[in-house]
Amino acid sequence: MDTAPRESHEISGWDYEADVVVLGLGCAGASAAIEAGRAGADVLVLERSSSGGGSSAIAGGELYLGGGTRIQQACGFDDDPDEMCKFLLVACGPMADEERVRCYSDGSVAHFNWLVDAGVPFNPSHWPDPCWVPPTDDGLMWLGENSAPFNAIARPSPRGHRPATGHFGGWLLMERLRAEMDAITGVGVVCDFAAERLVVERGRVMGAVGRRYGADVAVRARRGVVLATGGFAYNEVMLRQHAPTLVGHPKVGTDTDDGRGILMAQAVGAAVQGMEAGQAAIAVPPLLLVRSLLVNLQGQRFINEDTYPGRVGQEALYHHGGRVFMVLDEESFESVPPEGRRGARPTWVCETLEELEGEMGIPTGALAATVGVYNTYAARGEDPLFGKNERWLKPLRSPFGAIDVVAPNEVAAGLVEGPRTGFNIFTLGGLRTTIDGEVVGLDGDPIDGLYAAGRVTSGLPRWGYISGTSLGDGTFFGRRAGATAARR
Amino acid sequence: MDTAPRESHEISGWDYEADVVVLGLGCAGASAAIEAGRAGADVLVLERSSSGGGSSAIAGGELYLGGGTRIQQACGFDDDPDEMCKFLLVACGPMADEERVRCYSDGSVAHFNWLVDAGVPFNPSHWPDPCWVPPTDDGLMWLGENSAPFNAIARPSPRGHRPATGHFGGWLLMERLRAEMDAITGVGVVCDFAAERLVVERGRVMGAVGRRYGADVAVRARRGVVLATGGFAYNEVMLRQHAPTLVGHPKVGTDTDDGRGILMAQAVGAAVQGMEAGQAAIAVPPLLLVRSLLVNLQGQRFINEDTYPGRVGQEALYHHGGRVFMVLDEESFESVPPEGRRGARPTWVCETLEELEGEMGIPTGALAATVGVYNTYAARGEDPLFGKNERWLKPLRSPFGAIDVVAPNEVAAGLVEGPRTGFNIFTLGGLRTTIDGEVVGLDGDPIDGLYAAGRVTSGLPRWGYISGTSLGDGTFFGRRAGATAARR
Repeated sequence: MDTAPRESHEISGWDYEADVVVLGLGCAGASAAIEAGRAGADVLVLERSSSGGGSSAIAGGELYLGGGTRIQQACGFDDDPDEMCKFLLVACGPMADEERVRCYSDGSVAHFNWLVDAGVPFNPSHWPDPCWVPPTDDGLMWLGENSAPFNAIARPSPRGHRPATGHFGGWLLMERLRAEMDAITGVGVVCDFAAERLVVERGRVMGAVGRRYGADVAVRARRGVVLATGGFAYNEVMLRQHAPTLVGHPKVGTDTDDGRGILMAQAVGAAVQGMEAGQAAIAVPPLLLVRSLLVNLQGQRFINEDTYPGRVGQEALYHHGGRVFMVLDEESFESVPPEGRRGARPTWVCETLEELEGEMGIPTGALAATVGVYNTYAARGEDPLFGKNERWLKPLRSPFGAIDVVAPNEVAAGLVEGPRTGFNIFTLGGLRTTIDGEVVGLDGDPIDGLYAAGRVTSGLPRWGYISGTSLGDGTFFGRRAGATAARR
Repeated sequence: MDTAPRESHEISGWDYEADVVVLGLGCAGASAAIEAGRAGADVLVLERSSSGGGSSAIAGGELYLGGGTRIQQACGFDDDPDEMCKFLLVACGPMADEERVRCYSDGSVAHFNWLVDAGVPFNPSHWPDPCWVPPTDDGLMWLGENSAPFNAIARPSPRGHRPATGHFGGWLLMERLRAEMDAITGVGVVCDFAAERLVVERGRVMGAVGRRYGADVAVRARRGVVLATGGFAYNEVMLRQHAPTLVGHPKVGTDTDDGRGILMAQAVGAAVQGMEAGQAAIAVPPLLLVRSLLVNLQGQRFINEDTYPGRVGQEALYHHGGRVFMVLDEESFESVPPEGRRGARPTWVCETLEELEGEMGIPTGALAATVGVYNTYAARGEDPLFGKNERWLKPLRSPFGAIDVVAPNEVAAGLVEGPRTGFNIFTLGGLRTTIDGEVVGLDGDPIDGLYAAGRVTSGLPRWGYISGTSLGDGTFFGRRAGATAARR
């Protein structure tokens, strides 16, 4: 893809013109358009697909919000921005951007209210159990705050805020943001526009060119261009160059996450950061995971199984080659109701650990040593190695079982089509921006007229990832980028 | 640092002019200059320091060469390019560049001969033991080929070729390359020149500007500019953006490795890759390491301790947070002659593993479980978990000891000044290039007039690292870059 910029004098005529041009209509683009429009700017949103929504619309819907929102208060949780900030600095690190995390934490209650005013409904009720997405319409959920190491770093409060849908809620967030945006006079949308290059004039970004229905289209931006084009999970070349760990795994998102916004910005001198980072959701039922010993090929545990499952997946894929197994016993397996097992069944069941080691290909005695240490401490309600909560600690007893995470059994059994991998990935690296959404150049200075938000940027999650920091980051910093562009 | 390019019409006059301009006089720059000069080009090498040599001159001196060199043959090793290629694809991966590894392996014997012709002396003798740099002037050493997992992937042959010095040999390599270069009419050197920006004309690179003794200096390159400016270990901003794992550790190299070549090239549209990757040399004596169990904070082993120690360090720092310990017993410690211990002493010595766990802060029973499994198999001469060679396997017996790798005891005891860290790092990420040394742009096409080699590029080691692939890669692909630039 050639993304080299065009000089304005090369453009023979403008097909569209606006004060602020937003590329991409996911949650970041919609939020940017709303704020730019409210600031009085004439706004044009250019979207590649035929309707917009992007990866935001198919997301779980959690927004990481806290510091004492009305929902947190109604559910009896006493939170404040400092505690939220302490949590995010560790969860999004190493190298989490302190200024960004501080700004986000301090502004979180106001951002929650903004979302409510935009029509996003959150129920004042709390789902208490480990999960990816609760099976209810509860408005609040834990995202690792109550597990090690975070419960010792910041006072635990659940901060996963969910639109009231009963399941995935990204579509509802987008529906409401879109309605809010459409209600603003001066905000227009053009779909089916594939942006290809930025247009510059004396170093300043002042438009974009691309293709629409096979024709070249040029768009002039009087004040600035906001990039909200998503990450690069679907660009295999970029994945191999920057995030090789993520290659070969199924992706979470839409195929418009092809990195073109990053490339277009780099072509005018933008800096990127954290390009190797990615989220790797481990495709196992959390209620089974917390009762298991998650072990690697050497039969070793490596994380508290009750922490946010995204962290478990990241650790398993980045640090253990993605070859991991959930070891548990019959009693633990049976204690999870069938709907909580989500179709998972043990890959192997054995009377003894020695037999199980043989089935799993782990040297005799290695898994038994791990289980021995675990059981000794679990009997006392302790997990000094990794800090799993007492609630999930129970010595494992025969018969034992293990689930091969890399070969989900529905796939292995040929029951469903799918890749034989237990991780679903997306990228976290991207453009460097200021907290006001200005894209930063290689020299460290903002690039005049260029703004960005959402997954096209390296945002809140620098290396670690917590659910809700995609939609949370995209809407929060999308708003700031839109406001900054309108003010220019 | 502002590295935005200058347009040629902005340059009022040229201070220097040559067919090929090489920035940086380390092994890559010298090799590029030699080949460009031999091809008949008028060459100017611009060096930032007052004498040149760079990180190459202070390096250990190993060159990764094989496929059947005269030294390998003299020492009785039967190697071929296919086996070398198989090894490097795994050792430099994941995402090792197959075309590059193939080209390097196939050309390795010829490159060895080129180095010999340039006056680099290699003795036809082999050092057999694990080490960073042998204490002898033997010309050949192992670099992990004879240990797991590599010994099962490719037929083991030692490929570490060492200039005959008796210790670090990078200076001798540079001395001979420099003499070879100086003997070529038409190759000149200007020192104390700090390059800052490239000069472009209609998208083509045709020079560079920088500072020398406080004055602006402009240099015209009729055919092309070869970047050989080194990595970015000494640029803290870049490290934090791209390789956060490496932040805070002592660096291997010279402080001219500040990433400016990467930034200058990015400013004209160059692509980078693998920016997170780095080498992390674990600062422990290999002869003690191979006899130890290297464990993390949970008392778990994670690698065969007899593999190339650079791999051990990378695994420890990237995947175990750099908090690791060498556990061994008195008998093993005493079996290493004092000169092989290099001043290392146990941080703790205890009669029982339980006491040792208490001293180390490892939960009771966790280290004992690890040692139990290890001892059971070691007694049979096996290490099924990590594949350490039988030569180093011996059950550990009381009294036990452990060395805290993160706090080298000379430093902890206040005997020597130094950082309390057991890793010495440098960067591996950089510019994308073709195997002919052309710098590749964001669009995937070569940038006209711009070439690069050495640590400024992402070369042979994409993620993994083996000693000798810095000087080997720099000289081999430096030659190709110089030849390509001269041909333009």
